[in-house]
Amino acid sequence: MKKPLILVSNDDGITAAGIRNLVNVVKELGEVIVVAPDSPQSGMGHAITVGDTLRLNESHIFEGVKAYECSGTPADCVKMARHFVLKEGQRQPDLVVSGINHGSNTSISVLYSGTMSAAIEGAIEGTPSIGFSLCDYSVEADFSHTAAYVKKIVQQVLSKGLPKGTALNVNIPPKRNENIKGIRICRQANAKWVEDFDQRYDPNGRSYFWMTGNFVNFDKGEDNDEWAIANNYISVVPCQFDLTAHQAIPLLNEEWDILR
Amino acid sequence: MKKPLILVSNDDGITAAGIRNLVNVVKELGEVIVVAPDSPQSGMGHAITVGDTLRLNESHIFEGVKAYECSGTPADCVKMARHFVLKEGQRQPDLVVSGINHGSNTSISVLYSGTMSAAIEGAIEGTPSIGFSLCDYSVEADFSHTAAYVKKIVQQVLSKGLPKGTALNVNIPPKRNENIKGIRICRQANAKWVEDFDQRYDPNGRSYFWMTGNFVNFDKGEDNDEWAIANNYISVVPCQFDLTAHQAIPLLNEEWDILR
Repeated sequence: MKKPLILVSNDDGITAAGIRNLVNVVKELGEVIVVAPDSPQSGMGHAITVGDTLRLNESHIFEGVKAYECSGTPADCVKMARHFVLKEGQRQPDLVVSGINHGSNTSISVLYSGTMSAAIEGAIEGTPSIGFSLCDYSVEADFSHTAAYVKKIVQQVLSKGLPKGTALNVNIPPKRNENIKGIRICRQANAKWVEDFDQRYDPNGRSYFWMTGNFVNFDKGEDNDEWAIANNYISVVPCQFDLTAHQAIPLLNEEWDILR
Repeated sequence: MKKPLILVSNDDGITAAGIRNLVNVVKELGEVIVVAPDSPQSGMGHAITVGDTLRLNESHIFEGVKAYECSGTPADCVKMARHFVLKEGQRQPDLVVSGINHGSNTSISVLYSGTMSAAIEGAIEGTPSIGFSLCDYSVEADFSHTAAYVKKIVQQVLSKGLPKGTALNVNIPPKRNENIKGIRICRQANAKWVEDFDQRYDPNGRSYFWMTGNFVNFDKGEDNDEWAIANNYISVVPCQFDLTAHQAIPLLNEEWDILR
């Protein structure tokens, strides 16, 4: 049987520890091609480069793996992989994986996440896609425990597929939480960031700001990704790119008097 | 009765024609505060500024309206408005409006849209929010026909509210399509962009790319935003920030054998 073609991207940039760990796992499971940002793209959400040019250069950073670094966002990388590196008529990826992100992408963070934008871009193209994140922000985050779980999840998706248009948002507890209890299918928790702006003054006396924030969890359920991580499970949230609040449609149709 | 407080942002930047048109409409309907990007932010999706500083300066561009220009993304602008300009304890916006975007944000474009990211950020904060876009990319796009519709929709939302966590994605046909037939509540059409990368060479002989693309509509329904615009209706899609593909949860729970 032909090996599956696996496209790898991320948002921390092609030199990050997380993507090296991810490539090491998936190169045992298929033929791998990497198209990843040439610089960190955290917080880029689903940004694309529309008013500027893009660069793409071959990279030899991964031994025995075809790789390219791109000046754009994670979503740009997946688009360039599909529509330039793998041109029309060529074999297209059987799976898109993104990450492993250095830091959590649970709950509302999925919207701001460059890691997940690469995965969602894969899903838009009809390819089963997974974004992986390690819930550890420390500079020396240890990714060693992630390999076994990443492998299990990738194998599962390669063998079972995913519902069309679905990308998985996978978050993995930090290594220091020993004895991960297992893997849970979850919904996105109802939580948000409450920002604070740290106002400082530059040497010219003009003010500038650093955005900081506190994460506030409103969710009391046990079926969401925040609960899973807090209880030492790996969370897997199936995500979609249809943002329609379908339940609101009949409501607005009934309530609004400007529709006729 | 106290006038509602309306926060205005956009993604084309504070000097764009669209936001001027929007401010002119809403300043008749409430007390207005503007926090908008100091430069164009098209295609920024739900990006936020996490690894860099932000600037915020007062602007006197709108007569009689308190306004600020911010160096960040549309989502940054809404966050700064809420958590810095209108500090804790101060009155918070009753409505967030964004736009009027110069160009369409129907269908899948909602994901890439900076205009809608400002509105969705408003919804995350629990405020009824609306993103407006004019489906006209021409440099001299005429916004004059939008005012009456924007006013109607804003008034409707101010009087009826919106389901919690909902942001409306409103697209308006171009002026040249005379006789707009009305306003339709829609779902996001199933369509996507098929990119093409125009490869060029700089004066040093190194290649660079411009992303171009064709929009491909797979949707045969008449209840979606693409159909509405093509048939000269204003489309209103209620959007949510929960990306969970809820229908996939029982499926994965049943199919996966790595959950125990």
